[in-house]
Parts: sequence; C-alpha cells; structure tokens
Amino acid sequence: MEIPFATIERISTYLRCLKRLKEKGIKKVSSRELSGFTKTTPEQIRKDLSYFGRFGKTGAGYDVSILTRKLERILKHKKIWNVCIIGAGSLGSALAKYNAFKTEGYDIVALFDNDPQKIGNNIGGKEIYSIESFPEITEKIGIEIAILTVPQEAIEEIEPIISKSKIRGIINFVPQLLNIKTRRKITTLDVDLAQKMYILSYLIKNKKEE
Amino acid sequence: MEIPFATIERISTYLRCLKRLKEKGIKKVSSRELSGFTKTTPEQIRKDLSYFGRFGKTGAGYDVSILTRKLERILKHKKIWNVCIIGAGSLGSALAKYNAFKTEGYDIVALFDNDPQKIGNNIGGKEIYSIESFPEITEKIGIEIAILTVPQEAIEEIEPIISKSKIRGIINFVPQLLNIKTRRKITTLDVDLAQKMYILSYLIKNKKEE
Repeated sequence: MEIPFATIERISTYLRCLKRLKEKGIKKVSSRELSGFTKTTPEQIRKDLSYFGRFGKTGAGYDVSILTRKLERILKHKKIWNVCIIGAGSLGSALAKYNAFKTEGYDIVALFDNDPQKIGNNIGGKEIYSIESFPEITEKIGIEIAILTVPQEAIEEIEPIISKSKIRGIINFVPQLLNIKTRRKITTLDVDLAQKMYILSYLIKNKKEE
Repeated sequence: MEIPFATIERISTYLRCLKRLKEKGIKKVSSRELSGFTKTTPEQIRKDLSYFGRFGKTGAGYDVSILTRKLERILKHKKIWNVCIIGAGSLGSALAKYNAFKTEGYDIVALFDNDPQKIGNNIGGKEIYSIESFPEITEKIGIEIAILTVPQEAIEEIEPIISKSKIRGIINFVPQLLNIKTRRKITTLDVDLAQKMYILSYLIKNKKEE
C-alpha cells in the first residue's frame, strides 16, 4: 500500500512533537491534545497512524514513549545516518553547527566547497573537502544524505558531481529544482524558506480570533 | 469557507514552482506538469486552486504569469512585509543574508540579540538591536514578522518580550513549541529542520525504482 507523502510529513510532525512532550516528562497524550500542537484534526492523526498498524486503545491516549519509538522506527530505519553539507557558506556553516540534527541521529560529518580558501578548514569540528572529491569521500565515509546550500548559480556545476556519487538523498535549500534525472536517481526534498513566508503571511491575514 | 492548512501549504509550493518556471521563460503549464514538480496529483492541484475561483480552461494549461500573480495576491496580500530576526547567531546571521526572502518581498530590516558584543553591529547591512527594545523598535519600523532563531534555553526569556510587542507572525526555527498564549495571539509557523531529515530518510528507504 502506498502511503501519501502528506501522511509522512504529518507523521514526522507528530514524532517531533512527541519528542518534545517526552522531554517535558509527559507520559500520555490523546489524539486531541496532539492535534492542538500539530495543526491537524484528531481524526486525521488516527487515520495517519492507522497506515502503520494499531497504536494504543481508543480513549486511553497514546503512550508517548512507545509511540515515539514506533514512529522513529518507521521513519528512520537505522540509528545513525551520516550527513554532509555541500556549500560551506553562511547557511551551510550554520547548519553544520545545528544541534538538533545530531540529537535526532543525523550526524553531519563533512562539508564540501569549491573555494580553495575554505578547503581543509574546519567548521564545528567537521572538515571542508573539495567538491571534486565528493563521490570518493562520501563513499569512503559512508555518507548517504547531503544538504545542499550552494548559491543558485552553482547548481549546474554541482549536479553532475552529485550524480556520479552514491549519495541517496538530498535536502535542497537552493530555491531551484534539481533536474529530473538527478531527482529520479536521488531522493530529493526541497526546503524552501521563502515559501514559509508566503504561508505565514496568509495565516496572519486569515487568523481567526480565538 | 475555511481553507485547510494543507491546501495553503501546497498553494505556496505551486507558487514557488511557478516562479521558477517563469524565470526559465516557460509560459504555460498543465496541472500534470506542475504535479511532477510538487509531489502531488493533478487532481489535487485542481481541487486546491478551486478554493480560490477558476483558473484557466480545462485542457489548455495554466498561464504561468497570471497564475503566479493570482496566487501571490492570495497568499501575500501586500507588496512588502518587514521582517526581523530574533537571535543573531549563526543561523540568524545566515538568514539575514538569505536573498530569496528579499526577492519574494519579505524584507529583513533588523536583528535582535541579548549579547552586548553584538548589539549595534551590522549583518548584511542590517542593525542588531537589543532584545529589550524589541516592542519599541518593531513598532517604530513597522515590522510584523519575526524569525526566531535563538537557542532553545532562551525561549522562556524571549516569549514575554515578544508578547508585549505588536508583532503578528513568527517563523519559529527553535525546536520547541511556543506556549499556547503566545500562539493564540501571534500566528506561529514552526520550521523544524530535523523533521526534514525524518521525512527524507523515510523516502530514501521507500523509494520506488523509476
């Protein structure tokens, strides 16, 4: 059975929310409470979870620890993913120091850039390698995910290098779509920060008084 | 009629995609082509757009320019939004230099921090103000949107200051939910970068061969 992309997105929202509840020491949560945090309905939550089996008894609420563990297994499959960053500019450097990735088991282990001034340096303890060595280094270290933060005009130069590698997934922060051949081979998730602005300005304008 | 949040999210994806097509000089796009770029179905696109009226004739495809302009008006309402960043750390500084916001008409005009070493400095030509002056400065400059990039432990200190201001929307990069009182008063959109990792690792594992 194919699970809709929107369900996977929401499941990952529930998981991140459950983790925060767990940190606060909360042990049980109802679908109603969870819906309050995640901009969805209790019915939607129950439907989304039903794709993956049964979770807890009706009316009793979900056990936060158990549900966290189950959703983590569904989404993540393995304990640690090795991740690299392509583009050691300001956004790339900021993400290299971003703690939440490591906490969740996505370990940034290397950066890549084409600037000779940057190659060989460290950011947050991670080495910056030459982009030319991308296929070789990623295979050697066992990196499967790349975060793409290069300038828009560098995309054309970067794509053939990425295509030659064994990388499996890309989180793309560049506001441009990768070409269809790359996207067929490598799973790509676009993170468009400007898009968030559009959503927010719509929500501001249409906010209901509560 | 209330429009589902998921529709607004998708509409903003369509808009960003249309803008890229426009940059490439593409004048017409079918719902099928648009669906290929946006991980959704042609039926979903037509349904989402139908909330906002009729766009183009069946079978003829959408006029990229017209649809772009219409969706922009629906989501954005006005030409320029003034935006500030709370937390002039590495992520905040990177976002202050992030061009795509400006291109879309979301203009970052100020930063706020509590570090006396940073206050008074400039990042990308924008002044860093003391967080204490947040309600006053945002009102004076006419800032309605704040991007929150403070460390997690600073949230408790920051929330009462934000609550005193006339800010209308927050893009929250801190992996912690703001309290319910703040969220009732101020429209909040959480951007959870670690969540993207969960989605990507799921998609990698479940990628269909094409």
